[in-house]
Amino acid sequence: MAVAEKELVVRHVGDDDAPWVDTGMGVELKLMRYDSDRGTWTIRNRFAPGVQLQRHRHTGPVEGYTLSGRWHYLEYDFVSVGGSYIYEPANSVHTLHVPEDNTEPTDVLFVIEGALLNLNDDDSVDNVFDGPAFVEVYFAMLEGAGIPRPNGLILR
Amino acid sequence: MAVAEKELVVRHVGDDDAPWVDTGMGVELKLMRYDSDRGTWTIRNRFAPGVQLQRHRHTGPVEGYTLSGRWHYLEYDFVSVGGSYIYEPANSVHTLHVPEDNTEPTDVLFVIEGALLNLNDDDSVDNVFDGPAFVEVYFAMLEGAGIPRPNGLILR
Amino acid sequence: MAVAEKELVVRHVGDDDAPWVDTGMGVELKLMRYDSDRGTWTIRNRFAPGVQLQRHRHTGPVEGYTLSGRWHYLEYDFVSVGGSYIYEPANSVHTLHVPEDNTEPTDVLFVIEGALLNLNDDDSVDNVFDGPAFVEVYFAMLEGAGIPRPNGLILR
Amino acid sequence: MAVAEKELVVRHVGDDDAPWVDTGMGVELKLMRYDSDRGTWTIRNRFAPGVQLQRHRHTGPVEGYTLSGRWHYLEYDFVSVGGSYIYEPANSVHTLHVPEDNTEPTDVLFVIEGALLNLNDDDSVDNVFDGPAFVEVYFAMLEGAGIPRPNGLILR
Repeated sequence: MAVAEKELVVRHVGDDDAPWVDTGMGVELKLMRYDSDRGTWTIRNRFAPGVQLQRHRHTGPVEGYTLSGRWHYLEYDFVSVGGSYIYEPANSVHTLHVPEDNTEPTDVLFVIEGALLNLNDDDSVDNVFDGPAFVEVYFAMLEGAGIPRPNGLILR
Repeated sequence: MAVAEKELVVRHVGDDDAPWVDTGMGVELKLMRYDSDRGTWTIRNRFAPGVQLQRHRHTGPVEGYTLSGRWHYLEYDFVSVGGSYIYEPANSVHTLHVPEDNTEPTDVLFVIEGALLNLNDDDSVDNVFDGPAFVEVYFAMLEGAGIPRPNGLILR
Repeated sequence: MAVAEKELVVRHVGDDDAPWVDTGMGVELKLMRYDSDRGTWTIRNRFAPGVQLQRHRHTGPVEGYTLSGRWHYLEYDFVSVGGSYIYEPANSVHTLHVPEDNTEPTDVLFVIEGALLNLNDDDSVDNVFDGPAFVEVYFAMLEGAGIPRPNGLILR
Repeated sequence: MAVAEKELVVRHVGDDDAPWVDTGMGVELKLMRYDSDRGTWTIRNRFAPGVQLQRHRHTGPVEGYTLSGRWHYLEYDFVSVGGSYIYEPANSVHTLHVPEDNTEPTDVLFVIEGALLNLNDDDSVDNVFDGPAFVEVYFAMLEGAGIPRPNGLILR
């Protein structure tokens, strides 16, 4: 039936279908999927050695898979390398850090629900970074780099 | 198998199993379920006539079902009454208002993913209200009212 | 930004916006929301006294809220009445039964992820009932009853 | 607060923390995460050249990321290779096939909600394969291979 079957198509985003953009701050990023209805987003980040992100709290769960490189959270003992999987429950708080002595970029796939609440030292919310913000940043940086907006991304 | 089957039990929370607490600000509330891993929470709110909540943005989707009374969002034309269902996509922004001339409390069931970002007039985030905050408020108000903490809630 | 904000509108389905249909087997039903991408559906069921559904297993979690009447699962001790909330984890198995001596219809709101696997006595799958099937049944019964298909349902 | 914060810990599963098992049918598998409450599971599959899976329908959405190798669905034109991302909506139907002339195993990460309904040619359900079944198979094969059950998996 037309109504029920309307979006039952598997979608594929090849590596080249989603170009990397460079934030100029040691982080490259690309978007594969953003669901505006659910607030979920699937992305990749490529971190240069020495990068540290602002400490943040998640409003929903996150799954991560490290493709290459090495990184960790300052609050935890584990070190994530190629082949490592992580699960972050909603409301967990952490500070991503990439060792200065890494010799290659650190490439991580993230499947994210909801927002990152970037925190001040006193745990108050400094700013919010979420799916809509990621899409906006990604498209603006593509435009700034003169790269045509890809039409194969999974945007809903 | 033990591992796979460990939590396959249906849980029931009767109306009396989750006592109402009164915030003193025209809003009564009760909690049925909070999943700390997912950041999802299922609650009921009972609003007095004239109540207006702070304008907020959601980081995840919300489903609502009105059991009795009458309310609306200032940004929309619809009026929700007993039997009305609403769906709020992630990142939608709205201001809940209960008409002053309502003659009964407005009782609404909400199934919520993620956080409410309460907004200032300039759309910056004033404060965050989420599942953990709701649980904390609910339990503190129960204690303040001398009501034993119910042990049948669905807390994970 | 247009792409990110495209579906941020709250949707409202009033009680009359989703007409009841009668299956002729003691069950009336209506649909408020079906998300074909996620396989999630939000419905109401009105059960006549004495109704019993086929024992089934769920592939995803279900939340239920009883609006009126009285029902239970044969496998459990609780009895759900108006104001009762239930949570069914994925893969739970149960048999819904409505007491013969009920004096009014039993009206239940269900928020469902995934499919019901209706089971044979030996636990093999007899048939599958899911969101697409519900939509198909609902629209076919509306047509059979000469009721115009409602255009305010939340279909994605 | 203790109740609200009880599971806010990020969990890490290194590549060696989840051993591969070999089904003997051209498919190796490992489990990183299974949530019995939600029916969600995150796994890796390593497919030998020439493998074809039974055509199936999903009851919930699936995300996939190909780490190495090459595979496709018989019903689609795309070919997934290292770096490819796919999104499968709930209720989509497809037949995974790995080309015979692949020279390396095909390694794919899958994030799955709900069940696979393996289909007969007439679209009736032949059998169901889901998170609990995967866990059971994985643990049985570990035991059969004399590998101790890993204690770092994310099981809920």
